[in-house]
Amino acid sequence: MENQSNILKYKHLGIYTQNENVVYMHENCHVCASEGFEALTRIRISTATDSIVASLNVISSNLLLTDEIGLSDAAAKKLNVSPNETLYVSHLEPIKSLSHVRAKIYNQKLDYLAYNEIITDIVQGNYSNIDLTAFITACAGNRMDLDEITYLTKAMIASGMQLHWNKEIVVDKHCIGGLPGNRTTPLVVAIVTAFGLTMPKTSSRAITSPAGTADTMEVFTNVTLSPEKIKEVVHKEGGCIVWGGTAQLSPADDLLIKIEKALDIDSEGQLIASVLSKKAAAGSTHVVIDIPVGETAKMRSTKMAQELQDHMEAIGKEVGLNVKVIITDGSQPVGRGIGPALEAIDILKVLKNEADAPKDLTERSLLLAGELLELSGKVDSGTGYQTAKQVLESGKAYKKFISICKAQGRFSQPVLAHYKNEVRAEKPGVLQVIDNRKIAKLAKLSGAPQSKSAGIHLNVRLGENIEKGQLLYTIYAESKGELNYALEYKNHHDNIITLI
Amino acid sequence: MENQSNILKYKHLGIYTQNENVVYMHENCHVCASEGFEALTRIRISTATDSIVASLNVISSNLLLTDEIGLSDAAAKKLNVSPNETLYVSHLEPIKSLSHVRAKIYNQKLDYLAYNEIITDIVQGNYSNIDLTAFITACAGNRMDLDEITYLTKAMIASGMQLHWNKEIVVDKHCIGGLPGNRTTPLVVAIVTAFGLTMPKTSSRAITSPAGTADTMEVFTNVTLSPEKIKEVVHKEGGCIVWGGTAQLSPADDLLIKIEKALDIDSEGQLIASVLSKKAAAGSTHVVIDIPVGETAKMRSTKMAQELQDHMEAIGKEVGLNVKVIITDGSQPVGRGIGPALEAIDILKVLKNEADAPKDLTERSLLLAGELLELSGKVDSGTGYQTAKQVLESGKAYKKFISICKAQGRFSQPVLAHYKNEVRAEKPGVLQVIDNRKIAKLAKLSGAPQSKSAGIHLNVRLGENIEKGQLLYTIYAESKGELNYALEYKNHHDNIITLI
Repeated sequence: MENQSNILKYKHLGIYTQNENVVYMHENCHVCASEGFEALTRIRISTATDSIVASLNVISSNLLLTDEIGLSDAAAKKLNVSPNETLYVSHLEPIKSLSHVRAKIYNQKLDYLAYNEIITDIVQGNYSNIDLTAFITACAGNRMDLDEITYLTKAMIASGMQLHWNKEIVVDKHCIGGLPGNRTTPLVVAIVTAFGLTMPKTSSRAITSPAGTADTMEVFTNVTLSPEKIKEVVHKEGGCIVWGGTAQLSPADDLLIKIEKALDIDSEGQLIASVLSKKAAAGSTHVVIDIPVGETAKMRSTKMAQELQDHMEAIGKEVGLNVKVIITDGSQPVGRGIGPALEAIDILKVLKNEADAPKDLTERSLLLAGELLELSGKVDSGTGYQTAKQVLESGKAYKKFISICKAQGRFSQPVLAHYKNEVRAEKPGVLQVIDNRKIAKLAKLSGAPQSKSAGIHLNVRLGENIEKGQLLYTIYAESKGELNYALEYKNHHDNIITLI
Repeated sequence: MENQSNILKYKHLGIYTQNENVVYMHENCHVCASEGFEALTRIRISTATDSIVASLNVISSNLLLTDEIGLSDAAAKKLNVSPNETLYVSHLEPIKSLSHVRAKIYNQKLDYLAYNEIITDIVQGNYSNIDLTAFITACAGNRMDLDEITYLTKAMIASGMQLHWNKEIVVDKHCIGGLPGNRTTPLVVAIVTAFGLTMPKTSSRAITSPAGTADTMEVFTNVTLSPEKIKEVVHKEGGCIVWGGTAQLSPADDLLIKIEKALDIDSEGQLIASVLSKKAAAGSTHVVIDIPVGETAKMRSTKMAQELQDHMEAIGKEVGLNVKVIITDGSQPVGRGIGPALEAIDILKVLKNEADAPKDLTERSLLLAGELLELSGKVDSGTGYQTAKQVLESGKAYKKFISICKAQGRFSQPVLAHYKNEVRAEKPGVLQVIDNRKIAKLAKLSGAPQSKSAGIHLNVRLGENIEKGQLLYTIYAESKGELNYALEYKNHHDNIITLI
């Protein structure tokens, strides 16, 4: 149906819609008129060499002339267009893999080929947010069996870049969700690479939390490295701690996760496929996964965590990963800092074996590092923790950490934010509950992670006897306004920390 | 969290996104910066008196200044804003009913209260397309039981305007999907109102078909009437045939249907709730529902149609409707015309009892009118069809139809489009298949329903012996370009009509 009349001139509009491809055309544009396009219509936009699918928004103002066409930033980037470039517009042939999504909606079991076609179309940007949401919802609520989760995981691995390290054993770790301050990754990498294992760690930035590992590491060093630079660092140091966004590992995952966040759901199947596909694509062979369980953690019951454990270990085997899941206490934040620089301070204290290093952060890191050492087969069963402890206490882990940071481009000391407010107990009592979600929200309102040095420094732990007037936590902010924002939230929520 | 810094000045952008509320802010706008909004974020936008929820798109160009805010047409209309008006922006408190949607995703049964909260939020525009899609998908694939479909139907009835006619019996009819040219509604209304029943008929425009009943009726008369004018017409004539869009009956339905169309799915539960809620809200008491079954009709198997029949009649009873479902032949188009004016011509021939009136259209209309007469209890069981036939043959139905059109504002004669192309058989044979979907597509490409007189005039029926060179159908178009469009499609699809 394509013909000469379907040619329009590109105009840059600068509209950021996150990942969604949106195309803008004037209501009186000849293409709109002759093709009968209307809003919510999906159409194909092509340059001479490339094409994408986009959702139509119709312009009735002078943002566009009738012979012009606009694209959302995501769409323009994918097509790599320049102003005034000629674009071709055509009706969208039906996207074949959507028939698999419909089959899944109608409770049918899909095979590998179906998942592969779906994931391929998602990565190519052929799915609208509506299509992505239908796929996620149809797969949620335990509607995928173990076979299907395996197929999905394999399809996601195949959809992006895959790293290869030419090592027999490549270790990795992952923590499933939601415990503020639980920044064990830099410590685990430092310990196991100092021991001699290979651990090329790609981490995420915060999406809804006050800090991701990449945000915290950025206080110390550069984390946005090219794939070539990452290889160089890992070759030299045996490990790295970088932001995973440049590596294009399991790219479908990033698109699906944004929809899941918008819906505030976690489908078990998607979660497993997400975690394992990233690890497998990153070239890992042995992976320890930490699942903190607690009232206000992502995983609220031990039973659910155990089920997830079984499924992850089983599917890991199917996709060629040696997976060990450990279930840990998720009842309160880990360490004292919540926010990039505050967490970085905790990390340095642990690495330097300082007397006031947060014990819980140290212990969790040794536990995970020990499990990794044992899983790798390089130490005897039952000796992992002790070996990790020796590496940490010897100062080798600290030295290795500094080396990795320098190899990534710099080593910088964390600094605290200028504005602060000390929150003290209004009555005496025993500390009963620390609400992980509310304390994280407070850290975010203070500016973290955009403001690197903003966040919360927590002075107390569950079960402690608290005196009236005792310091509970300090809020740090880089501006007066952000400090007030956080204080306003604090004043309206008296159950962030509960004494009885 | 609302404060003085969250004030922005409205600028009209003229971006039509169909129903979705989208808000546009500059990336350097102080609200974006201080609130940490990012794309896909949902936020609340308020005037002094009203507020809506919208999805954020971030502008990096000069479309907006940093202190300006734009809205999609749908959002601007709901807020009723004027250029330079002050708008207040705030973080969105969690939408409570989305927790019910999540529960449904996780396979839980919802109660009436939950469905009512969901539908209320949908009507208020609080759901993004992502939220709507999750709700639709979670309810599809037989995941709602009869109780739940009843709750959803009742919630949808309650969500909008409800008409009352002060009549003991108010009849209505509905046809479920997808048979080109099946324009029985104007005939049924003419017959049963001529008999003396009350039938205030609201119909839809085409969404994906070459004509809806409202499009066809618009050839004859005005169909966009105010609720007051509709009452006046019905009071005077006992019936009307108008576009339902102004009546605000079951408004959630319109939003849900657009997502279902985008996904190309028909959830049984949503379908039942959609049809019955519109009928109940329109004040109907007795409803006949026609389900055509055929290979290329919406309903492809008699078994599925029978299940739908059982469920519709049962749920009808629960919501106070007397529902009778009849299953009819959906193997080919009905009548000869496909497209507004061409269907209007068929209707006039039937009403005027002309010798060349399409028999199938006449018979279907008499069947449905007869069922309605019997369902109303105004004629004895088994005498409905004969009674309807007498009313039609007496000329009373024709007279009534003209009266109704005039009461709605005018009566105009249909005219044929100027451009046409006759499609003839290339070989002799027996007519085996007419593809409903492809012939509808051909009519759309010729310009229907926007071009009222465009479409297809079908000269043949299934089972007929066709000679080589015999006229199969004529394509009508209002412009040479549209005619060529349709011909190009025809030339690439040799199975629109199949002879053996």
